[in-house]
Amino acid sequence: MAVALSPATTTLRLIKPFSATALRRLYIFYKPKPFFSISLPTISSISSVAAALPLSRRTFCSVIPSAISSGEATKTETLEKKVGEFRKKNKIVDIKGGPDEGLNLVGETVVVKGWVRTLRIQSSVTFIEVNDGSCLSNMQCVMSSDAEGYDQVESGLISTGASAWIQGTIVSSQGSKQKIELKVEKLITIGKSDPSFPIQKKRVSREFLRTKAHLRPRTNTFGAVARVRNALSYATHRFFQENGFVWISSPIVTASDCEGAGEQFCVTTLVPTSGEPGDSPVNAIPKTEDGLIDWSKDFFGKPAFLTVSGQLNAEAYATALTDVYTFGPTFRAENSNTSRHLAEFWMIEPELAFADLDDDMACAAAYLQYVVEYILENCKEDMDFFNTWIEKGIIKRLSDVVEKKFVQLTYTDAVELLLKAKKKFEFPVQWGCDLQSEHERYITEEEFGGCPVIIRDYPKEIKAFYMRQNNDGKTVAAMDMLVPRVGELIGGSQREERLDYLEERLAELKLNKESYWWYLDLRRYGSVPHAGFGLGFERLVQFATGIENIRDAIPFPRSPGSAEF
Amino acid sequence: MAVALSPATTTLRLIKPFSATALRRLYIFYKPKPFFSISLPTISSISSVAAALPLSRRTFCSVIPSAISSGEATKTETLEKKVGEFRKKNKIVDIKGGPDEGLNLVGETVVVKGWVRTLRIQSSVTFIEVNDGSCLSNMQCVMSSDAEGYDQVESGLISTGASAWIQGTIVSSQGSKQKIELKVEKLITIGKSDPSFPIQKKRVSREFLRTKAHLRPRTNTFGAVARVRNALSYATHRFFQENGFVWISSPIVTASDCEGAGEQFCVTTLVPTSGEPGDSPVNAIPKTEDGLIDWSKDFFGKPAFLTVSGQLNAEAYATALTDVYTFGPTFRAENSNTSRHLAEFWMIEPELAFADLDDDMACAAAYLQYVVEYILENCKEDMDFFNTWIEKGIIKRLSDVVEKKFVQLTYTDAVELLLKAKKKFEFPVQWGCDLQSEHERYITEEEFGGCPVIIRDYPKEIKAFYMRQNNDGKTVAAMDMLVPRVGELIGGSQREERLDYLEERLAELKLNKESYWWYLDLRRYGSVPHAGFGLGFERLVQFATGIENIRDAIPFPRSPGSAEF
Repeated sequence: MAVALSPATTTLRLIKPFSATALRRLYIFYKPKPFFSISLPTISSISSVAAALPLSRRTFCSVIPSAISSGEATKTETLEKKVGEFRKKNKIVDIKGGPDEGLNLVGETVVVKGWVRTLRIQSSVTFIEVNDGSCLSNMQCVMSSDAEGYDQVESGLISTGASAWIQGTIVSSQGSKQKIELKVEKLITIGKSDPSFPIQKKRVSREFLRTKAHLRPRTNTFGAVARVRNALSYATHRFFQENGFVWISSPIVTASDCEGAGEQFCVTTLVPTSGEPGDSPVNAIPKTEDGLIDWSKDFFGKPAFLTVSGQLNAEAYATALTDVYTFGPTFRAENSNTSRHLAEFWMIEPELAFADLDDDMACAAAYLQYVVEYILENCKEDMDFFNTWIEKGIIKRLSDVVEKKFVQLTYTDAVELLLKAKKKFEFPVQWGCDLQSEHERYITEEEFGGCPVIIRDYPKEIKAFYMRQNNDGKTVAAMDMLVPRVGELIGGSQREERLDYLEERLAELKLNKESYWWYLDLRRYGSVPHAGFGLGFERLVQFATGIENIRDAIPFPRSPGSAEF
Repeated sequence: MAVALSPATTTLRLIKPFSATALRRLYIFYKPKPFFSISLPTISSISSVAAALPLSRRTFCSVIPSAISSGEATKTETLEKKVGEFRKKNKIVDIKGGPDEGLNLVGETVVVKGWVRTLRIQSSVTFIEVNDGSCLSNMQCVMSSDAEGYDQVESGLISTGASAWIQGTIVSSQGSKQKIELKVEKLITIGKSDPSFPIQKKRVSREFLRTKAHLRPRTNTFGAVARVRNALSYATHRFFQENGFVWISSPIVTASDCEGAGEQFCVTTLVPTSGEPGDSPVNAIPKTEDGLIDWSKDFFGKPAFLTVSGQLNAEAYATALTDVYTFGPTFRAENSNTSRHLAEFWMIEPELAFADLDDDMACAAAYLQYVVEYILENCKEDMDFFNTWIEKGIIKRLSDVVEKKFVQLTYTDAVELLLKAKKKFEFPVQWGCDLQSEHERYITEEEFGGCPVIIRDYPKEIKAFYMRQNNDGKTVAAMDMLVPRVGELIGGSQREERLDYLEERLAELKLNKESYWWYLDLRRYGSVPHAGFGLGFERLVQFATGIENIRDAIPFPRSPGSAEF
């Protein structure tokens, strides 16, 4: 292996890719992206030559990448030298991602760097499909035996999984799958791929790929999921920033007793942590005279846990900055080995001050429509892929979400509706019960024909202590947003801002008032009506991609028995 | 207390703020923000009336907020009704944040909702300073005794910390501190403030405020830090998204042995976690016959830890998607009670494929210049505040970073330079030693006059195993970026992409090759030169705000003995 990798690097040195003759100017089209196009002068990715050209068709020069040199300093006369300019990389998406899929570049010389997906050696010509992860599309590279570096194809250096540097001319393609292809002038193997490469052309199962979480982003499906996940994340930030929300990082480790410790992970330094499994005697754990764990010796001086929600912390900031949101990881030590549960997942939790449940629902609906519209606009190729290969009709389903007005009804009315339904449910319905996934899906999919539905005003017994009591004394100002296929996607509520109501509720639930001292303070000093909601980000990724198992919606999933990588 | 809060809410109901007469249309100026102005039609915050107006001066109508109603459903004839439209809230920044600081709005009627900062009752008139956290500025509300709701001032309901809904007319101000003020027509106390409110006008220490982390965002300093922190976060996403990087969430909990478990927190469900300190007998921890902790019984089936870095995971995605970045929390169980260390902090870790150390340095420099320029442009008021009250000259220091070309020099040259320096250092310098903060600051502050400096090519003995070896056999392609005042802000390297070199290095350091199976796979299958860097986000916040203690740069800091809130 080691020997096999070295020649490629050595080859590079021999052919001197940095010589003056090699520094050919390669022009490629600069595609202005509407959402990404504002760049400040100092960080402009366009060279000064290019800057002088009109905006509609800017070109910029690219040198053969210094990337494949070593990282050594070049000795200069003086001790110091200036740091070079950062340039936006030329990627396959920049070539093929435009409206004419690259046809405008026919005749241009470009360099592509990426990983070989497939190789077809024919008598006259070799087809190499190269992908760099910037888009779903490969660049089809067509190489004849007289091109420079063809010996690397012949010797087997170029195979599925190998990485390569390929220079060539854009020509229009005769294939039906793409408009253009690359006529190879020169190829350099950067790193070969061992024949054991587990992701060969034959289809591999998602279960298998979960055991190769470090390599699965090199597949079509996981590359597309990663890009759409990224777009959903960015759209989330954009939505809240455009509406004046401040991003807050709520704490991950917390010794606050507010969160009901039942399904929390303990975070500790008391357990011997050398990482060697043999090196963790129970006896080494500090204990009190009573044989209890001596928490005073722990890092935080008391039991500490991984957070299950940043909401209470977000409330503190909302009652100072008006509108805030969190976007960070949260945890459940729930022993659920299902396709809907993760032990570690990302949550988005906006919190709005001077807001009631109506404002909260309006915000949740606007948020969902915004991010869904964003990916439909900005991830067309990936969404077409999901529509074809993962869930037929997903684009229609998502477009419905963008276009339809969301419906709201009360829990009481929803129960009435379910009782009248002709459908037979596994779990019987009665006022006071928690709605099951089958009920939720029936409502959104069958009763309201695929329109997202918000159910509000749930019985207080089945909801959290902090939710605002309605005047009926029986329900709270809670809401759940149901969407087709997924069921509950968002849960939120108006928070109880009245100190006396909140204290009473804590007492009823036998929760320790002292633990909530700071949370109660928010009601003691300038309390305001406020509301918020929570959204599991991986659920959103599932909803937006059609991916069935939530473990495929996050790069490195954590579940019972599994925290590899 | 409970009684004291209730009347305010009752008052609201009595005066029927939602009656038809109360639904006056309030016009305020819509300030288009260059970075935030793109909004899709479905989520437009501008009413349809406003949309017809020219972009340069859009107005939009605002109704008196339904926010201060309860969260109950209004019964309608049908079961369901539609979810209302989400509107961008009118905040003080929308009134005072424009170029003429609100003068354009003189004569308009507006509503302000926020918290009372100070109250000055004079014989003829009362001044109420209200802040809603949308900007540093308060709205100065001037109330005469004949205005509606003045009884609430007289009765003491309105005091520092109370929340209020105030309607009035914008008039130009005679004070020197602001251009405009609000002539109050009507005031409603939303929530009164208990006299024990700890943040009164007298200056309170930052140490004290750390014990009130839930209330400190209501101060000028912490409000400004929160807003600038938010802007730095958003600028980070914008920079990487504009340059084609994909955001990756690296895992927080990891059972991977790659990270040197010494200073990691253990994450476990073996320790009794009812949250009751008395309820955690050491005996209850499952153990093997040898008296060792029985990790097979733990949630993940083996010892698991909180991550110290997402880099290795980011490398897996970079070698599939080319350019990626992480932005998430990381942890150190280091017992350092200093102003520079947190147990929990956020890290930004970009990873670039087909990139060498030069590309890495260029990216780091461009990134820093981008985010600093972003806050100088977008947080002017807060930055002026820091410049006056926190660190005199900070704007000049930051502007230098944006304007100056960063300098690079090798570690070897840096040592030479330190040896020649006239300055006497506490820690003597010799080739092979790690540079101390005093050395770093000397170089950037004195040798290069405040210009950020990147030192590269460090001795391999003082750097991590994964850094790429230079040809000299002694140094690695590592870099540290030093900035004035803070010292090291960014650390990065080109990664060792050669399998044989990497395996050799693991053996030298007696690291277990099997633990790194997946990391080595990245070199086995299509290895590419790649590089990246890491940046502690709270260090960046310190650097950008001048805040001295890192515990004041994050909303809820975690440090030894402290995980409150």
